[in-house]
Amino acid sequence: MASSFRLLSSRSKCLLMQQQQRSSLVYATSTSSSSTAAVRFATTSPNAFLPTLRYQPSSYFFSSKSISSDASSSSTNNSAAKTKIKAPPMVYISGEEMTHYATQLLLQHWIEPHFDTTSWEKYDLSCKSRDDTNDQVLADAVSAGKRIGAIFKEPTITPSAIQVQEMGLKKAWGSPNGAMRRGWNGITISRDTIHIEGVELGYKNRVLFERHAVGGEYGAGWKDVGEGTLLTTYIPSDGSAPFVVDKRDLTDKHNVCVVYHNPYDNIRDLAHIFFTRCLEHKVTPYIVTKKTVFKWQEGFWTTMKKVFDETYKDDFLKAGLLDRSGGELMHLISDAATMQLVRWTDGGFGMAAHNYDGDMLTDEIAQIHRSPGFITSNLVGRSDDGKTLIKEFEASHGTVTDLWNDHLAGKETSLNPLGLVEALLGAMMHAADLKLASKPNDKAVQDMHAYTDNFATTLRQALHNTFRYGQGTRDMCGPTGFTTEDFIAKVAWRLNRYLAKQLEAQAPPELTEADLPISPKKMEEYDQKAILKLFEKYDKSGDDAQKRIIAFPPAILGIAPMDIVMPIDVGIDDPAPHIPLGPYLVLYFVASLKASPRTMHVEPTLDDGNVFEQLEENSDN
Amino acid sequence: MASSFRLLSSRSKCLLMQQQQRSSLVYATSTSSSSTAAVRFATTSPNAFLPTLRYQPSSYFFSSKSISSDASSSSTNNSAAKTKIKAPPMVYISGEEMTHYATQLLLQHWIEPHFDTTSWEKYDLSCKSRDDTNDQVLADAVSAGKRIGAIFKEPTITPSAIQVQEMGLKKAWGSPNGAMRRGWNGITISRDTIHIEGVELGYKNRVLFERHAVGGEYGAGWKDVGEGTLLTTYIPSDGSAPFVVDKRDLTDKHNVCVVYHNPYDNIRDLAHIFFTRCLEHKVTPYIVTKKTVFKWQEGFWTTMKKVFDETYKDDFLKAGLLDRSGGELMHLISDAATMQLVRWTDGGFGMAAHNYDGDMLTDEIAQIHRSPGFITSNLVGRSDDGKTLIKEFEASHGTVTDLWNDHLAGKETSLNPLGLVEALLGAMMHAADLKLASKPNDKAVQDMHAYTDNFATTLRQALHNTFRYGQGTRDMCGPTGFTTEDFIAKVAWRLNRYLAKQLEAQAPPELTEADLPISPKKMEEYDQKAILKLFEKYDKSGDDAQKRIIAFPPAILGIAPMDIVMPIDVGIDDPAPHIPLGPYLVLYFVASLKASPRTMHVEPTLDDGNVFEQLEENSDN
Repeated sequence: MASSFRLLSSRSKCLLMQQQQRSSLVYATSTSSSSTAAVRFATTSPNAFLPTLRYQPSSYFFSSKSISSDASSSSTNNSAAKTKIKAPPMVYISGEEMTHYATQLLLQHWIEPHFDTTSWEKYDLSCKSRDDTNDQVLADAVSAGKRIGAIFKEPTITPSAIQVQEMGLKKAWGSPNGAMRRGWNGITISRDTIHIEGVELGYKNRVLFERHAVGGEYGAGWKDVGEGTLLTTYIPSDGSAPFVVDKRDLTDKHNVCVVYHNPYDNIRDLAHIFFTRCLEHKVTPYIVTKKTVFKWQEGFWTTMKKVFDETYKDDFLKAGLLDRSGGELMHLISDAATMQLVRWTDGGFGMAAHNYDGDMLTDEIAQIHRSPGFITSNLVGRSDDGKTLIKEFEASHGTVTDLWNDHLAGKETSLNPLGLVEALLGAMMHAADLKLASKPNDKAVQDMHAYTDNFATTLRQALHNTFRYGQGTRDMCGPTGFTTEDFIAKVAWRLNRYLAKQLEAQAPPELTEADLPISPKKMEEYDQKAILKLFEKYDKSGDDAQKRIIAFPPAILGIAPMDIVMPIDVGIDDPAPHIPLGPYLVLYFVASLKASPRTMHVEPTLDDGNVFEQLEENSDN
Repeated sequence: MASSFRLLSSRSKCLLMQQQQRSSLVYATSTSSSSTAAVRFATTSPNAFLPTLRYQPSSYFFSSKSISSDASSSSTNNSAAKTKIKAPPMVYISGEEMTHYATQLLLQHWIEPHFDTTSWEKYDLSCKSRDDTNDQVLADAVSAGKRIGAIFKEPTITPSAIQVQEMGLKKAWGSPNGAMRRGWNGITISRDTIHIEGVELGYKNRVLFERHAVGGEYGAGWKDVGEGTLLTTYIPSDGSAPFVVDKRDLTDKHNVCVVYHNPYDNIRDLAHIFFTRCLEHKVTPYIVTKKTVFKWQEGFWTTMKKVFDETYKDDFLKAGLLDRSGGELMHLISDAATMQLVRWTDGGFGMAAHNYDGDMLTDEIAQIHRSPGFITSNLVGRSDDGKTLIKEFEASHGTVTDLWNDHLAGKETSLNPLGLVEALLGAMMHAADLKLASKPNDKAVQDMHAYTDNFATTLRQALHNTFRYGQGTRDMCGPTGFTTEDFIAKVAWRLNRYLAKQLEAQAPPELTEADLPISPKKMEEYDQKAILKLFEKYDKSGDDAQKRIIAFPPAILGIAPMDIVMPIDVGIDDPAPHIPLGPYLVLYFVASLKASPRTMHVEPTLDDGNVFEQLEENSDN
């Protein structure tokens, strides 16, 4: 019975824990002798208990073998390794230093246990790799991105002159951003605030940003010149007469002259992407330019306004999203925008701007929202045939050299991977979207898409709750926060638990086996006996056990409150956590044997992280 | 004796109160019947009591007539009107709407009672005036600024198309900024945070900013073009071969192409202005560019760094101002600067940047520091001969149309004039500096300079304390804050009081009259009698008056603690405010009659505004 109890108390979280237990990174939880048993049970095929998730490809949960109704069997066959879902193709661009290390870790512990990522095309954009390949690797990555359409990129180093020397590079390989923006016909860099439910960062509600991905001084031509005349001429390609754009006399002895252009053909695309996103996230849109002085920016505004009025205005009005902007799409002067970003900390707005303004303003947003770790950075382009949106996802921060140096020196580090994992989930989700768009009626693809969507939501939930329980990284939780490795392990543990709980919460499987040959009548008797026995053993409260047990109507046996079975959840969903757990455990055990239909509420509506956590720790062993 | 008492208690603040009492704006203070007497005494020539301020031109305090040793004389002759100091030449550019109204008010109530401003050259830059003169007024103002070198400018309106119609203008007169920056060979726009001692705004300590006043996209040439080629050529004025700066193919159907240049000859000037100011205000300097991507900005940094290392580094090191930047002048990337501005709310730093970066970053600073009302905006240029710095001072905000509309509608308004008056004081001080530089050995000019300097300090003190007593405008003090007019009146009242106190605190006058014909022996007897008599009258504490009085050594008679005479100051400087005031008053009265040397500490080191204010109000009538 003790063995059964261990099975029951750990069953629902052990399904996926095996990957974690095998990891050297696992968060230490060894306060009870049952942990070995838990590991052993984890390797048991759990499928006999598990209903089919309606959005799961059935092959994922029901491998062809080892379906068993014997809950206590201790098979060592690892079926989970064989039930990974096949991730659709994606380009994975790896970088270096601390963010490379952390992303590899979280891939290993969060993603790969659940996804077969063999279809991902990997490109190493480290300085050494670019140097070794004479930057062919960048060209290849861009080409692959164009073909596949979904790209994740780790932070990379754009080497300085000093780094060129230190690393012994052939040359100072430039930022890959230009090649990517050109290669993928970049339209916008979308940068949104990342929020942790229940944790207040800078902005209370979401802030969206579209930064025009091309044009401006990033592509400028320039020269250092002395006194003289600068003449700029435009020669139309239609053969009409050339004309002078600008002629200026330079009277200083030292001048720099700068020439650039803004290609505006994709502003309509930018507008559609922006307004669609604003509507989806229910925020008020603003268009930011310096057009009052930089008159040439007028076209940006008029195009945005035209698209808005033609296509989106009614929807925004209906959604009440123009209340704060006077019922119209509103223009903000760029320097006024720097001020509103400081004032509007309630969030709930979006801004679209030119390239450099977007660079400045999104970094301001990042800092007001606490750090660049809490803002996304997604390049959105379009395939050459115009049919597909290409999306590249990356974190907004760099390679975090200082933590990397600490790590190399054997010191503890605490990197917050939120931006990295948001980028990874974004890319995986876009890959799933593209796959579904190409095969909308394929059941397996539909299942894959639904699984990926749910996985992303669940991983976010595991991440956010881990922060809320004070187990976050030190940027959020202070010096008592977790290390890089412990945080990743803790989230993996929580993710696995949530996923396992979801499985149990689903509709029942369509079993092909017959019911167990125990008559309901006999079952009921068996239940009563088992309950009484267990109750005596576990209930330390000294209440009249028999009387209380008898008071349970038999119907309860069929709807065992499963989320109360695990003591970790007591105190959260249960308004009366003082009830002894013993009887519930037995009820659950019996119900499991019967494999009868159950309903369960699994949404973690957590009120008190500390209480919850304490319970979690206790139950973890 | 009651009359004498009134004289004594009100004398030191009534000197300049007359201007206030005649104003319709005066803050109502009528809780005592002595106010009439106070007004009457205020019109008395006070000079008999007043020592010469060592930095005062003697003509200011000692008018040729009405020197009198009779403290109780009630002459109605208004000597103050004749003792205004002659302000040196300055260009005064007036604007319109609310800020024009408020600046005229504060001129009338804060400045003109103390300065003869007839040497100021006034230019009306309202839309109507520019329209009427076909903008000749702007040309004239710029020309006058070039000649005089010190300019104050009220906020002006750059009319929109709608305003052109509404006001019936001939055309949309552009921003005057370009004409001023060109005309005065603009080097930098200095924008610093304004602080109110004891009131926390955004930054705890000062933040300085130098924004390059010329170059960048503000002076760009541009065209809207289709597909084609853009060719930019440079033709050197030394006759050497022209060369191509940039050639680019435009493939979009809609492009804007933009050409600009940065004239870098005045960067050394900018560097000297910036580092001098940083050193003066003890802040750490940072240079902000986007040179990592906009490579042409490298020259800005290298020039700044060169000037710094050659001329300033040692001084900054000695002052410990490079501790936070690793012992070197530090460069910040512009988008990183947007983030540091959010993080470094302790202040104590300065930034120098290109034109547009400065535009964006200083507005961000303004908002973090609460509002554009708390940041200066000073254009610094140089005369054509290179010898003189031209400085134009303005507030960072506009004409505050909404408050103006309220005002016109007869509603109360509450405009915070801090930015306006900082600009005005800045311009007046620069005018004084220029005058002193032109006549360094002229005693009258020296006196004028010292008076202006002290006046600026005192007015700031009056302003800041008014905020601290909760009598500020509503942006700072909430709905119970003062109206525009009441605030100006209150500050005028306080300014006058502080100035009067300063007069009394100065070294004694070099009297030409003989001492009063009362022998010290007789005086002492007289004192004792008067003290006893007054003590009986005023001391309500019931202590043994005679015993205490006798305990006073005769020496005290010569060093009456004058700042305790005014009950308003009790509780601030006096550690034992429970001492009955009666004896002190008499001591003071006697001391005054003797016209003996006195010392006094007048610096208002205020601990508790409320207590202070209560006492002030009581003493005000």
